[in-house]
Amino acid sequence: MTEPERWFPSHIREIPEEDCRELLAAHEVGRVAYSVGDGRAPVVVPVNYTMEGDALLLRLGPNSNIAHHLQSTPASFEIDDYETYNQSGWSVLARGHSRWVDAADHPASQRLLPWAEGRRTLVVLLEIQELTGRRLLPA
Amino acid sequence: MTEPERWFPSHIREIPEEDCRELLAAHEVGRVAYSVGDGRAPVVVPVNYTMEGDALLLRLGPNSNIAHHLQSTPASFEIDDYETYNQSGWSVLARGHSRWVDAADHPASQRLLPWAEGRRTLVVLLEIQELTGRRLLPA
Repeated sequence: MTEPERWFPSHIREIPEEDCRELLAAHEVGRVAYSVGDGRAPVVVPVNYTMEGDALLLRLGPNSNIAHHLQSTPASFEIDDYETYNQSGWSVLARGHSRWVDAADHPASQRLLPWAEGRRTLVVLLEIQELTGRRLLPA
Repeated sequence: MTEPERWFPSHIREIPEEDCRELLAAHEVGRVAYSVGDGRAPVVVPVNYTMEGDALLLRLGPNSNIAHHLQSTPASFEIDDYETYNQSGWSVLARGHSRWVDAADHPASQRLLPWAEGRRTLVVLLEIQELTGRRLLPA
């Protein structure tokens, strides 16, 4: 087999947990991922979010499929950014547990304005149990 | 509770399957997601990819954690793009099954040059079983 290796591949570096947290705090859109318990592949959906302490808050339509599944379940949240021209980028993965919470107990949810239409009155809190990240540095 | 609804939220539209396929063919980086079978939240990791027919091909380091988990498992692949300034965007989710394949049997893998360093000689094929997408149109 021909092996088309590039001469200058990008370097992978771990991102320290504290920097992962700063990246999460600095962004507003990521992807929530969860399993639906039927042995099929996970669901991955972009949503906007905000941080509250060490947790993430989402606002969803109470009758949506995604809200149904996030009522109390293991869930992940991923953010990333990359540049095609020099093949660099970074990603942060927060793995934890999601649950419905009372919006009144989580004032940060008030400044989280959902992008999409519909009454997104349900607040989901994603508690982070494991926070990791990787950076891909140009060679 | 105060309800800070915006006046002009973005509209959600389903993306037809054929357009989802075109979007997959037109991009080169997405996020592969899989469960690790320990009841914890899914892993979601960005990788570059290429299409071969209706399937996706990835190239990974044979000794990597991700390769280990993708040997034969339900797996998803997500791509998206969004604009913060007008709160619009789109996302495509391919759910299916991943398995290791022989690179020689999948010539498209030859033009897939991994961004990251390391000998990424293992080719993973993600067979798409369900392909859906959503567009968020500015109001």
